[in-house]
Amino acid sequence: MVAQSLFPALAPTIEWRDGDLLLLDQTRLPHEIVVEHVADAAAVWRAIHELRVRGAPAIGVAAAYGLCVAVQDARALPLAQFRAELERRARWLDTARPTAVNLSWSLRRMLQRVLTCGASDTAALYDALVDEAQQIHAEDQALCEGIGRHGMPLIGQGSGVLTHCNAGALATTGLGTATAPIYAAHREGVTFKVFADETRPLLQGARLTAFELQQAGVDVTLIMDSAAASIMSQGLVDLVIVGTDRVAANGDFANKIGTLGVAIAAKHYGIPFYVACPSSTLDFRTPSGAQIEIEERCDEEVTHIAGQRTAAPGIKVRNPAFDVTPQELVTGFITERGIVRAPFERSLGSLFPAAGNAA
Amino acid sequence: MVAQSLFPALAPTIEWRDGDLLLLDQTRLPHEIVVEHVADAAAVWRAIHELRVRGAPAIGVAAAYGLCVAVQDARALPLAQFRAELERRARWLDTARPTAVNLSWSLRRMLQRVLTCGASDTAALYDALVDEAQQIHAEDQALCEGIGRHGMPLIGQGSGVLTHCNAGALATTGLGTATAPIYAAHREGVTFKVFADETRPLLQGARLTAFELQQAGVDVTLIMDSAAASIMSQGLVDLVIVGTDRVAANGDFANKIGTLGVAIAAKHYGIPFYVACPSSTLDFRTPSGAQIEIEERCDEEVTHIAGQRTAAPGIKVRNPAFDVTPQELVTGFITERGIVRAPFERSLGSLFPAAGNAA
Repeated sequence: MVAQSLFPALAPTIEWRDGDLLLLDQTRLPHEIVVEHVADAAAVWRAIHELRVRGAPAIGVAAAYGLCVAVQDARALPLAQFRAELERRARWLDTARPTAVNLSWSLRRMLQRVLTCGASDTAALYDALVDEAQQIHAEDQALCEGIGRHGMPLIGQGSGVLTHCNAGALATTGLGTATAPIYAAHREGVTFKVFADETRPLLQGARLTAFELQQAGVDVTLIMDSAAASIMSQGLVDLVIVGTDRVAANGDFANKIGTLGVAIAAKHYGIPFYVACPSSTLDFRTPSGAQIEIEERCDEEVTHIAGQRTAAPGIKVRNPAFDVTPQELVTGFITERGIVRAPFERSLGSLFPAAGNAA
Repeated sequence: MVAQSLFPALAPTIEWRDGDLLLLDQTRLPHEIVVEHVADAAAVWRAIHELRVRGAPAIGVAAAYGLCVAVQDARALPLAQFRAELERRARWLDTARPTAVNLSWSLRRMLQRVLTCGASDTAALYDALVDEAQQIHAEDQALCEGIGRHGMPLIGQGSGVLTHCNAGALATTGLGTATAPIYAAHREGVTFKVFADETRPLLQGARLTAFELQQAGVDVTLIMDSAAASIMSQGLVDLVIVGTDRVAANGDFANKIGTLGVAIAAKHYGIPFYVACPSSTLDFRTPSGAQIEIEERCDEEVTHIAGQRTAAPGIKVRNPAFDVTPQELVTGFITERGIVRAPFERSLGSLFPAAGNAA
């Protein structure tokens, strides 16, 4: 596994071993490295629901293998009954995280394989499902590798790279997205520094990004979100790479709250700002960032810390989970097919002519 | 008291009542409103050392009254012995927070009064000390009022004001500094919204600013530091007002980490950015921000939250407590004598010709 070679002391995010699904429990990181053997449908649903596996690409892979696990106890059924059971369990797994696009996408793709595989018995159909899940898994790794290959030349010897949130290996089954160029450069022996924003409120930067980079032996420094501009002002950052949850047709993109402020500061200091963008996050049906709806999450993420109330009761809160960064702040999108530069509407569209339909 | 009328349910930051020093314990806010009767020298030292009173102006006032309290048990001594005791205890109080400029300043001023008051007995000297402390206290309140009076017209009906950290009433004995225009406008019946950044790592915005504005009936909304740019991008902010710890001769200024990012975002969106600046923070001996040394605080403020470790052990941290915002991002300094605009070196110098020596 790619991830295994990166993190000798860390288990892969997701592993399929002789018909068993093993998940690295991300809710226990960075304190404990616990690998969960996910043995039945209910356990798959819980693992996704409780964020033990997280990150859009990783959820997609987990759901595909998870569907295989979910039907293992039905393999004695005749083909027609097995298919009915499969569809029923896929619908149920799809409820584990209602808003996770990759979850539905992955389960739909698995069911599509059922329709096209032409299996004449239950065993053959089950084998086709496992094969499809392994393909989804391999594609995720290849996609990360592609982003890594194209982004790696951006990271020069002795440079400083800043990232926000966790678009890391832990969010995928490979090199991650924003972290792919970082791991690729590290693998090639380039020495450089990474600054990881802690990423309030859920601290994915502190808990996950800093941790996985440390595990891989990358020189990483954890900073508060509010220190990013100061670190830039000291000349320590040559490059910003972030991930994205959705890219509109014009190149405006949504990502974890705080990304916009980092992009503005990068522009102020003339620092190149790149977005690692697997083609699966291109959404050409959304013309611009103005049409991206931003989820507001619960007040408690801001008013409480580690379960303890810090702000006074009754204080009003705005807690947007994401922000939209306009395309004019983006130097380029690092995709699995190459780096895309402005004008983005044209360049994204010509590199990914099918993304408008695929989204 | 000014503060008392602002916050009907809250005790004043500092109160001198018939020879007793009463401090609002800020380490218990916003959960409990506890007023501590500070009864002897050791209690004064502890209250300052343990940040039960905090904020440069408030520390200055607390130290002045604190010195009075510290010598109350020595009032039976003859004048010469009383003076020796007074100097000894002042030196000791000055060790409570070694880097707090207002602490030394206030104690030096109290000892200066000893030299000039011409008291012929211990009782008269003690009375002079109390009088000097009351003057320091009154001056602090007047300074806040001045900033409030000059800054108030900046806050229009229906506008949005963003602030960072706590340069609030709780940091002074009056209207605060950054909050003074806010309270002054609120007192005049202007309706407007305030957005308070939570201010990691110590959450002064969440714990103190949001709380004191709420107590005063100001419409305040708490946001994460990383959400400030997003809130600005939505057109919700018409004005930023922050405090400052030190202003260099050219107008570069130091303030709580995160201020620089707010200033850059404000410039990006064309939002006026003001610094509430009592003349006591002008430091004309420092030519520019390049000469301001930035304190780095301990890693644990970033790696732990509410006493619990969140980042993995061994992860490197940069934790600058302050940042320096260059003068070109400042629309104006709101001082007790008026608003100062660029070119700052000339305008600050002409409004405060003595500040170069006083600093």
